[in-house]
Amino acid sequence: MYNYNIKRNLSMLMDFYEMTMSNGYFHSSLKNKVCVFDMFYRKNPDNGGYAIFAGLEQLIDNIKNFKFCDDDINYLKEQNKFSDEFLEYLRNFKFSCDIYSVKEGSPIFPNEPILIVKGPVIEAQLIETMALLSINHQTLIATKANRIVNSARGKKVFEFGSRRAQGYDASVLGARASYIGGISATSCVLSGQLFNIPVFGTMAHSWVQMFDSEYLAFKKYAELYPDNCILLIDTYNTLKSGIKNAIKVFDDVIKPLGKRPVAVRIDSGDLAYLSKKVRYELDLAGYEDVGISVSNGLDEYLIRDILLQDAKIDSFGVGENLITSRSTPVLGGVYKLVAVIDEHNNVIPKIKISETIEKISTPGFKKVYRIKSKETNMSLADYICDISEDVENINNITVFDPIATWKKKTFNNVYLEPLLHKIFDNGVLIYDCPTVKEIKEYCEKELETIWDESKRLEFPHKYYVDLSQKVYDTKKQLLENKI
Amino acid sequence: MYNYNIKRNLSMLMDFYEMTMSNGYFHSSLKNKVCVFDMFYRKNPDNGGYAIFAGLEQLIDNIKNFKFCDDDINYLKEQNKFSDEFLEYLRNFKFSCDIYSVKEGSPIFPNEPILIVKGPVIEAQLIETMALLSINHQTLIATKANRIVNSARGKKVFEFGSRRAQGYDASVLGARASYIGGISATSCVLSGQLFNIPVFGTMAHSWVQMFDSEYLAFKKYAELYPDNCILLIDTYNTLKSGIKNAIKVFDDVIKPLGKRPVAVRIDSGDLAYLSKKVRYELDLAGYEDVGISVSNGLDEYLIRDILLQDAKIDSFGVGENLITSRSTPVLGGVYKLVAVIDEHNNVIPKIKISETIEKISTPGFKKVYRIKSKETNMSLADYICDISEDVENINNITVFDPIATWKKKTFNNVYLEPLLHKIFDNGVLIYDCPTVKEIKEYCEKELETIWDESKRLEFPHKYYVDLSQKVYDTKKQLLENKI
Repeated sequence: MYNYNIKRNLSMLMDFYEMTMSNGYFHSSLKNKVCVFDMFYRKNPDNGGYAIFAGLEQLIDNIKNFKFCDDDINYLKEQNKFSDEFLEYLRNFKFSCDIYSVKEGSPIFPNEPILIVKGPVIEAQLIETMALLSINHQTLIATKANRIVNSARGKKVFEFGSRRAQGYDASVLGARASYIGGISATSCVLSGQLFNIPVFGTMAHSWVQMFDSEYLAFKKYAELYPDNCILLIDTYNTLKSGIKNAIKVFDDVIKPLGKRPVAVRIDSGDLAYLSKKVRYELDLAGYEDVGISVSNGLDEYLIRDILLQDAKIDSFGVGENLITSRSTPVLGGVYKLVAVIDEHNNVIPKIKISETIEKISTPGFKKVYRIKSKETNMSLADYICDISEDVENINNITVFDPIATWKKKTFNNVYLEPLLHKIFDNGVLIYDCPTVKEIKEYCEKELETIWDESKRLEFPHKYYVDLSQKVYDTKKQLLENKI
Repeated sequence: MYNYNIKRNLSMLMDFYEMTMSNGYFHSSLKNKVCVFDMFYRKNPDNGGYAIFAGLEQLIDNIKNFKFCDDDINYLKEQNKFSDEFLEYLRNFKFSCDIYSVKEGSPIFPNEPILIVKGPVIEAQLIETMALLSINHQTLIATKANRIVNSARGKKVFEFGSRRAQGYDASVLGARASYIGGISATSCVLSGQLFNIPVFGTMAHSWVQMFDSEYLAFKKYAELYPDNCILLIDTYNTLKSGIKNAIKVFDDVIKPLGKRPVAVRIDSGDLAYLSKKVRYELDLAGYEDVGISVSNGLDEYLIRDILLQDAKIDSFGVGENLITSRSTPVLGGVYKLVAVIDEHNNVIPKIKISETIEKISTPGFKKVYRIKSKETNMSLADYICDISEDVENINNITVFDPIATWKKKTFNNVYLEPLLHKIFDNGVLIYDCPTVKEIKEYCEKELETIWDESKRLEFPHKYYVDLSQKVYDTKKQLLENKI
C-alpha cells in the first residue's frame, strides 16, 4: 500500500472531470488550443472588506512537480475512459502555461483576477483544482488571522489550532497562512520548522495533574524554564489556587535567580473578569511586568468585546476559530474560462452567463492595477483593464461602478501599481518566492495603504474594483449577444 | 529547502508544549511514569444525535512512522529549551504505549472514550495533537457525509468539494471520510487512487464554452463517452438551450449506437423547479430512464427540503458544505489525563475540574460497551465501566443517568459488545486496518442498530451513555475531595 503520509504525488489531486475533459480535448480539434482562465472570488469571508492572498508558494511547488508516474497512469487506465494516446501524453506531460499571480500577502478584493493561467487548454484545465485548493485555503486563513490580529489592537496573537484543523495540511499550512496574516507565533512545531515561524507553547492541564500538587507542578516547570516561565493557572481554580501558587513559585524559584517570570495563562472561565482579578494579584505581589495570556473559544468578535470591557490581557491564543475560519470556513474562489486565442493570435473573450448578475464572469485576457495616491500612498481602487491597454504612466484616472455605471469618480495625482506578476513563463518558473517572514512584512505594509474603513470587522466600506471602458464594453456586448 | 509536498515527516506535527512538557518529564521523577489518556468529544456536530468515528488508519500510519531525524533534532536544539539528553532520547525514540480505539465507521456518542492511550507519560503526551487532529477531522467529515446521505433518502450523493477543502489532506482524507459516511463516489482522483473509492466527474462549464456551440460541445462529449454520457446543461440557459441540446445529442449520437445516456446535470438555479421541468422534457423525448444530477450549495437541509418539494432528482453532488462541514466545521475532541499507574501497578484516577459540569472529565482507566438487544439487535445504550469490571456475560443491566442519577433504566435480554479494541500493544501494531470499503459497509450495518429517532437531522433523541456505579463513585469522590 502506497503510504500517503510518507511520499505524496499531488498531481493526481484533481477533480475527475479535469481528466475526462482533457482526454476529450486531446481527441478534438481543440487539442492545442490556447486559452485563458481567471481565478477570482466573489465575497469576502465574514462579510469583511478584504482578503489576504496566500498559498502561492505551495501552488508553485505542486506545479513544479506536476507529473504522472506509472502507478498514476495504470490507475487511470483502469478507469476505462482514457485512450492510450492520451495516457502516453500524460506520461510525458510538460507544463507550458504562463501564470500571473498576485503576490502572497497582498490585500485582494472580490471579482478581480488574482491568478491568471494562459496556455493549452488541457494543461490549464488539469491544474484547476490544485490552483483553487491552494489559494482558497490559505487565503481564507490568512484573512481570518488578519481580522483577529486587528481586533487584538496591538496585543500579540498566537495560533493554537492544530488539533482542530481539517487535516494535517490545514494545520501546517494554516499556521503558515496565519503567520502571513499577522499572528506572532504558532504552536505547530512542524510549521515552525518548515517555514521558520516562531513556535510557542508551555504546558497542558495534564502537566499540572501529573504532579502531587499544583505548586509542585509549577515549581518543576519554573526550575526547568526559568527564562520562559509561563504558568497555566486554571487547572483547579484560577483565583483560589492557580494564581496564588504561581506567585509563590515566582517568589520561590524565579526571583532568587534574579530573573523575571514571563506570564500566566488562563484557558477557561470568563476571561475579562479573571484577567482583572489576576492582574490585581500579580501587581500586588510586585509582578507588574508579568503578562496575562488567555485562550478558549476566542475569535475576532470575542477579543474585541473583552478588550472593550477593559480586560487586562497581553496576548491571545486562538485555536479552532482561526485554524478552520469557523464563522466562514470556505473561500469560494472560482476558475473561469475568460478567453481563447485564435489561430491569428487574436484574443477571443468568453463569458459564463448566470441568472445572478454578480455571478457573470468578466471576459477577456486582462490585467489589474491598484490605483495609489502619489500624495498619501493610500490605495484608492483596483482597476481591471485589457491586457492591451497602456495605463501605467497616467496621472489621473476616472473610474465607474461596473453595475451602477452612472457612479463615477476621478482620482488625480495617482500611480498605477500592477497587482499581477508573471510567475511561470511558458512553463518555466521565473519568480523567486519570498520567505514567509518577508510575506508577512509585505502584508503589513500593504494593509497600511488600505483605509481603516475597509478593514472594519463588520459593515466595512466597500473598496472599489472597477473595469476599464474597454473591458466593460466587451462584457456588455457578449451579454447582449448571448441572452 | 525541505519540500513539504514530496516527503513529509509528520512526527513534528505536534503542539510545542508537548515538547516542553516532555523535556520537563524527562528531567523529573515522572520520567517513566505510566499514565492513561482518554480521547472523547462533548457535542455532536450540527446538534445531531451521533458521530461516525474515522481517521484511525492515518493515525496508525503516523504512529508507526513516529521518529525524529537529524533535521528535527537540530531544529529542536536551536530552540534552546531542550537538554542534549532529552534530544538524544528523541533521536532514539521508540513508541511503547498501548492504544485502544473504536473501529472506524462506528457510530459514537459524546463523553465516551473513543481512543485510550496508556503508556509512559512522555510518549502519550507526544502523540496528543496527532491523535486529536487525525480523529477530529475525519470523524467530523464522515458524520457530515452521513447526515447528507440520510437526507437524500436513497438517492446517490457524490463528494465534489476538493477545490474548497481546507488544504490537500482535507480534500484527500475528507473524501475518504465522506465515503465511510456513505457517499457513493468522489471527484477527487487522488483519494480514489489511494483508497480505492469510486471516482466520478464529467465536464465543467469551460468545456461547453470552449466549443463554438453548446450542441457541438455536447456532441463531442457524447461521441467520446457514449457509455457514460452525462451532460451539464446550465452553461447558457437550462431550459431554453441546455436540455434541448442535450436531447438532440442523445438522439443524434447515443441512440443510433443502441446505447442509453446516463444523466443530465444542473449546477445553478432553483433545483426543485428546474428538475421538474427537465424531467418533463426528458420523459417527453423518451428518456424516462435518464437521470437528473444536481449540485450547487447543497447540504442535508437543502436536500431534505427540495426532496419534500418533490424535486425530480436522482443524485446529488455536494461540495464545500460537505468537505468543510460548513455548518459545524470543528469537532472538539479532547485528550485528557484520566489516570496514572503507581509503583505497585495500582491505577490512580485523575480528574480535570471545570466550572461547567459537562466539561469535567471522567477519571479512571475504563472500557466501553454497547448494550445491544438480543431480540432486535438494536443498540440501547453505551456503558462505561472500569477496566477491572467483568460485565461481558451479563444478560440484564440497570443503568442510570450520570447527571440526573434518579433516572434509571433496566435492559433485559441484552449482550454487551466492546466498543474499544486494542490497536497497539506495547508499541506494536496488532490491528489489521480494514479497507475503506469494508469500513463503509461496517458503518452502514452498525447505523442500522441505532434507532432512527437518534439519527434525526434536528432535535434527535439522545442516545444514552452511562457510567457504571464504580466509575460514577470514583468520579464523585474525586470531585468532593477537589472542590
